[in-house]
Amino acid sequence: MPKKCVVLLSGGIDSATCLFLAKKEGFLPYCLFFDYGQRHLKEIKSARRIAASAGAELLVSKIGFPWKGSSLLDKSLEVPARSSKGIPSTYVPGRNIIFLSFALSCAESIKAGAIFIGANARDFSGYPDCRSDFYRAFRKVASTGIKKRDIEIRTPLINKTKAQIIRLGAELKMPFEMTWSCYRGKVKPCNRCDSCRFRAKGFKEAGIDDPLV
Amino acid sequence: MPKKCVVLLSGGIDSATCLFLAKKEGFLPYCLFFDYGQRHLKEIKSARRIAASAGAELLVSKIGFPWKGSSLLDKSLEVPARSSKGIPSTYVPGRNIIFLSFALSCAESIKAGAIFIGANARDFSGYPDCRSDFYRAFRKVASTGIKKRDIEIRTPLINKTKAQIIRLGAELKMPFEMTWSCYRGKVKPCNRCDSCRFRAKGFKEAGIDDPLV
Repeated sequence: MPKKCVVLLSGGIDSATCLFLAKKEGFLPYCLFFDYGQRHLKEIKSARRIAASAGAELLVSKIGFPWKGSSLLDKSLEVPARSSKGIPSTYVPGRNIIFLSFALSCAESIKAGAIFIGANARDFSGYPDCRSDFYRAFRKVASTGIKKRDIEIRTPLINKTKAQIIRLGAELKMPFEMTWSCYRGKVKPCNRCDSCRFRAKGFKEAGIDDPLV
Repeated sequence: MPKKCVVLLSGGIDSATCLFLAKKEGFLPYCLFFDYGQRHLKEIKSARRIAASAGAELLVSKIGFPWKGSSLLDKSLEVPARSSKGIPSTYVPGRNIIFLSFALSCAESIKAGAIFIGANARDFSGYPDCRSDFYRAFRKVASTGIKKRDIEIRTPLINKTKAQIIRLGAELKMPFEMTWSCYRGKVKPCNRCDSCRFRAKGFKEAGIDDPLV
């Protein structure tokens, strides 16, 4: 019987690569997607297609942030075309902490042994919840705060460049055409937001064509 | 200008006492309530009245657990009349981890300096997310995972007995008549579930009459 794992799946390249990595390692993955009022909710379609292509179940949790403060949640704010210095306005305070907390709850409930999160300290080094010291701290929470004390928190992409992730995704035959990265969530990628720019740069450096372009 | 804080308010005695304690300490409290599909959702009325009585704003976050596994979430399971040994079926995996994660997000968004949670290691010692070692671990998450690194996680009731909490609530003139404890969430408290029994025992030991009885 394969060991279960929870994969935090947003529909982007990083989380989809995590899913295919978990499968390759022999896990039976359960994907977890959050509808948190993000303006690019269209990523849910990507997440559904990607989970289905990996033969994995997708669990959707709808969560409310009654406070705003991020341009990803608040449609009256502009998504910046290029992030200025420091932490960009697309930062959602505590987002990965919240996602991981739900993943822990889910993992304990379904008896999964590991959680995969595609956090990456390079591209989003401005986001504190993408850095290694946070993950070290969260592992301590995972080993004290729930009944099951041996759930692994896996961050296989934490130190990889986008190009390295894209090469890994290609090796794993991850379906890039199903992914969605753009923060704006319109019909086509805007090619201007941080997320689009990191994607384009990654494909270019990896020497691979982006099927969305 | 008073310092803001976030109080996790469930509508029960412990969290309400925390709210009045935070007020007494000079904080401007923002209360956070979760609608997580609990069978005793009627506690939201208590939370609303208690927050109003303290002159505090109540923020309600609706969150979905697409998995079950707790008798508090799954109405096909019975709430036990008396908990058996070990962790009871009313345990919701990771509940306080999730609540604290949202509180961190909220605290950062509204620029609050502290979070109050009425966790208590005595009555609910079977719940891992009510114990001190978990809170020590979560403090490390709070100081690494968000931009604002100095948000205090306050657990003023962690080592108190229910009787001590009730005496403290009485000193602070906390409106006990507005609180709700029963897990079953019917018209009147069932007086049989763990939560009702701890409440009754606490009032008895404190030598104070419970206005709900």
